[in-house]
Order: sequence, then C-alpha cells, then structure tokens
Amino acid sequence: MVGTALDEFALIAELFAPLAAGCPGALGLTDDAAFLAAAPGFDTVVTMDAMVEGVHFLPDDPPDLIARKLVRVNLSDLAAKGAKPVHVMLAAAFVAGTSEDWLRRFAQGLRQDLEEYGVALIGGDTVSTPGPLSLTLTAFGRVEAGRGILRSGAKVGHDVWLSGSLGDAALGLKAIRGQLSGVDEGHLSFLAGRYRLPSPRLRLGQGLVGLAASGMDVSDGLVQDLGHICRASGVGAEIEAARLPLSRAAAQAIAGNQSLLALALEGGDDYELLFTADPALAESLRRLATATATPLTPIGRIVSAESVTAVRVLGADGRPVPTGRGGWRHF
Amino acid sequence: MVGTALDEFALIAELFAPLAAGCPGALGLTDDAAFLAAAPGFDTVVTMDAMVEGVHFLPDDPPDLIARKLVRVNLSDLAAKGAKPVHVMLAAAFVAGTSEDWLRRFAQGLRQDLEEYGVALIGGDTVSTPGPLSLTLTAFGRVEAGRGILRSGAKVGHDVWLSGSLGDAALGLKAIRGQLSGVDEGHLSFLAGRYRLPSPRLRLGQGLVGLAASGMDVSDGLVQDLGHICRASGVGAEIEAARLPLSRAAAQAIAGNQSLLALALEGGDDYELLFTADPALAESLRRLATATATPLTPIGRIVSAESVTAVRVLGADGRPVPTGRGGWRHF
Repeated sequence: MVGTALDEFALIAELFAPLAAGCPGALGLTDDAAFLAAAPGFDTVVTMDAMVEGVHFLPDDPPDLIARKLVRVNLSDLAAKGAKPVHVMLAAAFVAGTSEDWLRRFAQGLRQDLEEYGVALIGGDTVSTPGPLSLTLTAFGRVEAGRGILRSGAKVGHDVWLSGSLGDAALGLKAIRGQLSGVDEGHLSFLAGRYRLPSPRLRLGQGLVGLAASGMDVSDGLVQDLGHICRASGVGAEIEAARLPLSRAAAQAIAGNQSLLALALEGGDDYELLFTADPALAESLRRLATATATPLTPIGRIVSAESVTAVRVLGADGRPVPTGRGGWRHF
Repeated sequence: MVGTALDEFALIAELFAPLAAGCPGALGLTDDAAFLAAAPGFDTVVTMDAMVEGVHFLPDDPPDLIARKLVRVNLSDLAAKGAKPVHVMLAAAFVAGTSEDWLRRFAQGLRQDLEEYGVALIGGDTVSTPGPLSLTLTAFGRVEAGRGILRSGAKVGHDVWLSGSLGDAALGLKAIRGQLSGVDEGHLSFLAGRYRLPSPRLRLGQGLVGLAASGMDVSDGLVQDLGHICRASGVGAEIEAARLPLSRAAAQAIAGNQSLLALALEGGDDYELLFTADPALAESLRRLATATATPLTPIGRIVSAESVTAVRVLGADGRPVPTGRGGWRHF
C-alpha cells in the first residue's frame, strides 16, 4: 500500500477533470463510471493499448510526449478501422513519489492531444506502483454501422497499400540511442520524432471506409502485421522490397548501411496504415491520398494462401528475401 | 524490450480467444479493435479499474483469484450504477518470465468469472513488464437510457443504505497477515475470502434502478465513499455507528479489540453498495433485499451540507465519533 504526498482525488480534479469538458456522460470524472448514450446507425469501435516504461518508452522521455504517444497509438488503431475517435479512458499506475511537476507536464501533453483530436477523457483510474510507470488507454470511436475496416476482408488479387513511409520509428530509436552514423542531424531529428510521436492517420482511415477491403496499422512491423491480415483473411501476400516507401532520412541511413533495410521491414512503431483494396479502386485511392495529404504506395498484392509463409518479400530480382522472425513481439 | 519463450499471439489465441465466444464484434480477438452495435434505448456504462501486484493484491495470491478479483471490482462499479455487465477488455502487463502454468491459471479464473457473470472478453492488450504485474480492466454495462444511478442524486432527508456487511475485507487482510487474534478459524477464513474475492452486487444494483436516488460501491472505505456522494450531491450525511452491519466474524474480531471498529469504518475493499433513497421507498427496498437475498441496512440519513465535515459518524450517545483521515487513498 504505497502512498505519496499527493492526493489522488485532488490530482484528478485539478489535472484531469478539465479534459472531460464537453462530454456530459463523463460526469466530470466524479462518478464510478461514464454513461454513453447510444448512437443509432453507428458502431462503437473500442481499442485498448498499454505502455510500460522501459518497454514502450524510455524512462527519460518527456512526460508530455509519453502522454501524447499513448493517445496516438490508441487513436491509430481507430484510424485503421475507419473510425472517428470520440472518447478515451486512462488507467495510470504512477510511480510512488512522482513529482507534481512531472504529473502536470503529463496532463498537459494529454490535454494537448485530446484537444487536437477532439476527444474527451471520460474516466479511468489512477493508482500507485513501486514502478515502472504503466499506462493503459481505452479509446472509443464511431463508424457507420457495419462499415468498419476489418483485418479479415483481404481477397486474392487485391493491391496491398501502405501510407507514409516505413521504418522511420525503428531507425529513430537507433538515432536516440546514438547508434546511427553518417546521417544528417536534421534526418536524425526527424527519425527520433517519428519514434517518439507517431501521427495517427485518422483522416485517411475515415476516408478508406468503402475503399479498403481490409486494414490495420503497422505497429509490430510490416511483415508481421501483414501476416495478421493474411491469417484473418485466409490469403497470402507478396511485397516488392523495391516499392517500399522510405523517407529521405531512412533512405540516407540505409544507403550507408544496407543491413538497416531489414530493420525497416521488421521494425515496429510506424503507425502507418496497411490495407488492401480492389485494383479498380487505385484511382480513388490516389485522390484520397491527395485530399488527405497522405502519401499512399502500392507495395504488393494479395495471393492465394498456398505457401508456408503468409508474407513473402521479393527482391529486385523477383526472388524472396529472407525476413527472419518477422517483427517485434511484445511477450 | 523484454521477451520470453511465450509468444504473445499464440498465448492470446489459446487462452483468451475462447473468452470472446458469443460476441461477434470481438472478432475472436484477432483484430485491432472490437465493434459494438448501438443498443437504442440504453446507455452504455463504462468503468476502468487497475490493480498492481503488491498494492491491490499480494504477490503470492492464487492467479485465478487475482483474475477473478479484477473482474469483480470492475463489475461492482457497474452494479453500483444499476447496469447489467456485458463486455470487458483486459490490458495485462505480465512480468517477463511468468510461467505458462501461472498464465493458464490466471486465464482459467478469468474464464470462470466471465462465464458466471455472462460477460464476453472483447479485446485488450498483453505486454511485458520487468514487474510488478499490472492489470487493467475496462468493463462495459448497459442500463435503460437516463436511468443509471449517479453519485449526485442524494437529497436532504434521504435514508442512507448499505448492503451486506462492513469491514470484512479490511479485517480479512489483517487475517491473511496473521494480525488477528482470538478469532475462530472459520471466521478468519470468511474474512480472508471477503478480501480476496468480493461479490459484485449485480442483482441488487439492477433492482435499485428507480429506487436509489444516488449510489456507489464501497471500495475506499465507508466514510470516504459517502463523502463522495455528499460532495457530488451538495449535501452532508450522518451515520449511526451502532447501526453499521457487521458480519459475525467482524463482530467477534471487534469484540476482542475495539480499535478494529475504526478499521471497519475506514477500511476499503468491501464492494458493498452504498446508496440513498426516499424514506417512502423503505418497504420496496426491504422487498428487494428479500428478492435478491442481499441484506440491506439503513445506516443514517442525508442532512444539509452545513458542517465542515461532509460525513459525521454518531456514537451511541448521539455525539460524533472522530473518523480520522476517512479511508484508503490510492495515491
């Protein structure tokens, strides 16, 4: 039973209750639960992601960025399903003795992103832990009933698409650790930012409703995540390595060290959207890319599930490239 | 980045996916999010409670009981709002190297209670932590639109009611620690069980819709929790110490050591329902007590918020008893 000088209820009232403004059902975070009115014609899309200090973020990461990353990785899941985010709940196990300043900066980051994405905090729990800091967010979104984008809709012949660029976050973690050499300062900073603060592709995801037949966000690595779509859909996939979209920063890093390409293929944390679509929709997708100012790249195709490996990556010579274990696994 | 021999996805598929049966929107736990169809005419009631090893449960508690307590403390919040539980999501930060046997027993406990309460697991997250074990549940319930029981409905003149008996869990923790003397073995075991495995008062809670004007569950201690109702309602409360319902086990413990009465007043974890109601409804409440086989005791009344202290406990002589800090605070 751990205690600190801070009072749980005073803390919640002062720092978190203002984030519930605009949602009457949150009851100002003064009740045991939140009440959400039914929205006929819509499905509620719910996701829950946890982050642990030392595993999902670094102990000396700025507290506002930790809060914002927590929000964003959860909203990214909603984006991938085509949902518009509406509410979040936060369960935080703060380390006993955490300073009030740290907590204020954490709450400030939370507030910044909830405001940016138009999302209300509707409840949660704050508890004490001997450490490490452990954070869990439940995010609630809304999509027209029955129109959410699932992993299970991929069909043979579909194109495989990826938003943005690949591998930046994995390279960014290397950059933060001082393990990238021969890369411009500006590029290093870009890569580190992509690790520390992903951008959920919300406008893109909502625009993909009716276009993408299946989809998810890339959080555990392209090969592994595409494997999830393949297994859920009963199909296979072929990716062309030469078509993978790289940022200029990532391209410079890989040009100086070809072994980093595998990191781009298998590293996680990019939070880009990976989806499949009928080839007839390619032009619509290009228009959506323009409208949402989000690069979209076709990187391969869905094939029948005949091979032992669900996802094959083809090199420039058309022959499979070995992909190893296939991505980051949490446990 | 911590890893173990266990594979997150294989683990989820084998242990947790069966718990999603019966809820198509859970997508067999194979997608990024769950999809919940709107239920017109109902509010969704959502609560989120976290438990940390060494803070909310003991490191050597049986894993099935840890899982069941996690479910029950969350369902207790739904019970207090008058809601019927429907779904849960689980975020678990398991300690790296946790044995498969431990995890199987944890999942077995989870399954047992989800089946008992007719609730489906619809998603969540499993991550790795260097420790301690940290668990968060989000629970979803349903109540007729606008009829949920809030903390804010208490009015001057209302009776204050409490279900079951008070202080068992706090005494149970003492029993587990070997700090209770002169108490029968059977009583010690009863008290320990009340600490380890609360019983959410779900049938009672649903029956209180339309009868209770305000309510919550007692998780942080009677005085502190009644204080929350008072502050949310802008009222005060007077409790008569002599009317507090004690189990035979608690009565024996307190008879041998009068100082334990304060523990009963201020200790948490009982998960009984505390509510207020118009005195005209007393007979209806007694019928509900019989119908749900749940003892209900009127323990005091709501008064105007004139005194400095929101909640006063009156001794047998009608004079206030000092109540100290007023309950367990998490942080």
